[in-house]
Amino acid sequence: MSAYDDLMAFTRETTALSAIAGRLEWDQETMMPRGAAEQRGEEVAALEAVMHARRTDPRVGDWLASAEQEQKNDVALAQLRHIRRSYDRASKIPATLATEIARVTSVSQGIWAAARASDDFASFAPTLENVIRLKQEEGAALAQGGDVYDALLSDYEPGTSGAALEAMFSALRPGLSTLRAAVLDAEPPAQLSGTFDESAQMKLTRKLARTFGYDMNHGRVDKAVHPFSSGSGLDVRITTRTSETDPFNCFYSTIHEVGHACYEQNISRDYLLTPLGQGVSMGVHESQSRIYENQLGRSRAFTGWLYGEMRDVFGDFGIPDADSFYATVNRVNNGFIRTEADELQYNLHVLLRFDLERALISGDLKVSDLEAAWNDRFEADFGFAVDKPSNGVLQDVHWSVGLFGYFPTYSLGNVYAGCLHEALRGAVPDLDDQLARGETSAATAWLAQNVQTHGGLYEPSDVIARASGRAPSEAPLLAYLKEKFSGIYRL
Amino acid sequence: MSAYDDLMAFTRETTALSAIAGRLEWDQETMMPRGAAEQRGEEVAALEAVMHARRTDPRVGDWLASAEQEQKNDVALAQLRHIRRSYDRASKIPATLATEIARVTSVSQGIWAAARASDDFASFAPTLENVIRLKQEEGAALAQGGDVYDALLSDYEPGTSGAALEAMFSALRPGLSTLRAAVLDAEPPAQLSGTFDESAQMKLTRKLARTFGYDMNHGRVDKAVHPFSSGSGLDVRITTRTSETDPFNCFYSTIHEVGHACYEQNISRDYLLTPLGQGVSMGVHESQSRIYENQLGRSRAFTGWLYGEMRDVFGDFGIPDADSFYATVNRVNNGFIRTEADELQYNLHVLLRFDLERALISGDLKVSDLEAAWNDRFEADFGFAVDKPSNGVLQDVHWSVGLFGYFPTYSLGNVYAGCLHEALRGAVPDLDDQLARGETSAATAWLAQNVQTHGGLYEPSDVIARASGRAPSEAPLLAYLKEKFSGIYRL
Repeated sequence: MSAYDDLMAFTRETTALSAIAGRLEWDQETMMPRGAAEQRGEEVAALEAVMHARRTDPRVGDWLASAEQEQKNDVALAQLRHIRRSYDRASKIPATLATEIARVTSVSQGIWAAARASDDFASFAPTLENVIRLKQEEGAALAQGGDVYDALLSDYEPGTSGAALEAMFSALRPGLSTLRAAVLDAEPPAQLSGTFDESAQMKLTRKLARTFGYDMNHGRVDKAVHPFSSGSGLDVRITTRTSETDPFNCFYSTIHEVGHACYEQNISRDYLLTPLGQGVSMGVHESQSRIYENQLGRSRAFTGWLYGEMRDVFGDFGIPDADSFYATVNRVNNGFIRTEADELQYNLHVLLRFDLERALISGDLKVSDLEAAWNDRFEADFGFAVDKPSNGVLQDVHWSVGLFGYFPTYSLGNVYAGCLHEALRGAVPDLDDQLARGETSAATAWLAQNVQTHGGLYEPSDVIARASGRAPSEAPLLAYLKEKFSGIYRL
Repeated sequence: MSAYDDLMAFTRETTALSAIAGRLEWDQETMMPRGAAEQRGEEVAALEAVMHARRTDPRVGDWLASAEQEQKNDVALAQLRHIRRSYDRASKIPATLATEIARVTSVSQGIWAAARASDDFASFAPTLENVIRLKQEEGAALAQGGDVYDALLSDYEPGTSGAALEAMFSALRPGLSTLRAAVLDAEPPAQLSGTFDESAQMKLTRKLARTFGYDMNHGRVDKAVHPFSSGSGLDVRITTRTSETDPFNCFYSTIHEVGHACYEQNISRDYLLTPLGQGVSMGVHESQSRIYENQLGRSRAFTGWLYGEMRDVFGDFGIPDADSFYATVNRVNNGFIRTEADELQYNLHVLLRFDLERALISGDLKVSDLEAAWNDRFEADFGFAVDKPSNGVLQDVHWSVGLFGYFPTYSLGNVYAGCLHEALRGAVPDLDDQLARGETSAATAWLAQNVQTHGGLYEPSDVIARASGRAPSEAPLLAYLKEKFSGIYRL
């Protein structure tokens, strides 16, 4: 056995243990009895301790050093790149700091939830200060003299930087603001009204999942409080939710999660249970969920087919024709909440968070000034005032559990989706004819072959560049949104 | 930290990992997508490798040696007894033998299943010979000069022996045979006929589970191919199954599994995630499932209440009154299959297997003679001939996966249930009045306090002796069966 073989055998076991940890999270959100939480916490901690010991096992360092000398082929080099990144990361963070972060973030989410429930930012502020201080320490340990925010960002999106994202987002924001203002000045389409049987929603949502290529032999669909996708390879499960008055929430949550899940399902089987066997970054992951949900799922062509399906299931629900249905699906509403935002406004919510969290990590913004900074920025971008913290600075869980550097990957994913969509339209000229028949296979096969199958083989921006034939840019997304919403709102 | 504290902290983590492995098995039988089996196998193997390394970790031997000198209190001594047994067991078996057993039994179940499907014992015989040879080696390694079968038996029922069981079963068998012959000569009660909606069965089965004290806040009920109970402490899940024509299968499988599950749920919380925090043996476990299912669930009093519940749910299903219903529930039928056998005949099936498997392990019976030996014994005990191997020697999975020493714990559990039932009747004189109202709390509280709460604190036969106030004996079971079936069949 070469050092590379030893390393891969060891890594494969670690990846398998990590897959088990992911499966337990799924169980916790879908199946676990309520009263089991305390015991489960201890079980998960025991597994985490095993994985931590493996990630920092000194043999990994030795194997890596030897294997990096030996190996020449692209796949092996990519495996080593991932293992090296993970090993160096684990080795740079002092054990005491890792323990302290785990300890603080295990309780901070509860404090945030209580503060949100009582609309009291002040009761969360000391905890957030603590979390930020620890993340600053962690980022400094990782950055070793470089940019602290960039070091945190690379956990979610290796190969990019705060400065590069700032440049991209600065080019995106004015265009979105202008388009948003024009849309909200125009006559709005009808809103959906009435009630829609929830078990019928689940039945149609499973059909939608299959329609978008989700492989039920290697997955399953359950209900949960929050929609998510879980797992890699041969066992990738999704959740969705239902609301009697809002079937779109169910259907588009499902299509979104199917985008994530298909990415994991379609990675080359050669990479099963290895570092290459998972989506390469949060941004690329989000590009798949978003292109499934928006560019395909909310297109005029596909919504025409969905309109017929919904009429078959629910009868006449008050929308007279497929054109009106398309406009209703894509209706732009004022709102406070990121997760409820439409395709046009979503990125404005994210850009706000990106700017604020960078300032928090750099120390330019104090937690004591955060609520005011949020409210000022929100009013500047959206034209109306935040009415309470649960509709503002307290709405998202991310910062409470130390996820700094995560938010921008949502918008980066949208930007990537724009690039991929432009290339996909070129590659499949009759895409709309297919979507209008509820056929997504040409589109999903193109994405599978050009993006998904590679798993972690290429760096994130490289996989997008290879697939779309251009360096990633916000321009295709902006052009797509302008064309789409100008059409719907007759601008 | 004392050696005992170190040992318990380490053991607690190992127990938590083992709970995760159990949860994965549950997932595999209830939720896992079909296509995920291969990946799951690798995940489970990775976790098993971690647990094996922990079970044989030399630090455990050192901690044990020190802690056994230090500790005096009963709970600590019981924890050490369990850890010692597990450590010695793991240490005595050569790694090569453990690997070979794992390798052979991972494929032998499939070979058995194929042989059963084609009713061809010869195609399974070489595999079974292999399994028996390995189990003989394992038993010899564990016995270190003592009895090989006893060493295997102690994995499932520590503290007993093949000779002790033989004495007990020899006293049981003639009484069962005599009673069986008399019953089958008498006029049989009516059989259940008609169809019973399966979702209504599941609803009533959940009510039955709660009626027997199953805590849904720390458990859940799902459907699976085979009914089972899974987990300990705060997360104990059960499965059941439905058949449109056989609602008793659903209801009594549920009550049986609830007996297992309540044992695990009711163990003292002080023992959570420690060796004492699980049922102490297969025999004691089966005593709980059987007393819930039979002595309580199939009693005249309780079936009177169940009759009313079934009438409420299913309307008139052709059984005219509660007395007839009680007789129908307890109807004795000729049959080949152990798992379908009634309370009266069940132990005859088990005793047959116990005698044959002891002879296989001792070498007195060759695999080439096994099918004939099975068929001869079956005809002697049941009075009619086995028609095909799938109704005879190939019906059970146990031997194919190396479970030698497991079968007798089923009958030992029935014997224990007989002892406990006798004592319970003494302790709760108005038990029938309560059961007739669908109230089981006095009975289940008595079992919880006298048996279940102790977990692994006492040795198996001790916990039964303490609860029942007498040394375990087959006499109460035999007396109970004679009285019950003499009444139903008017002997």
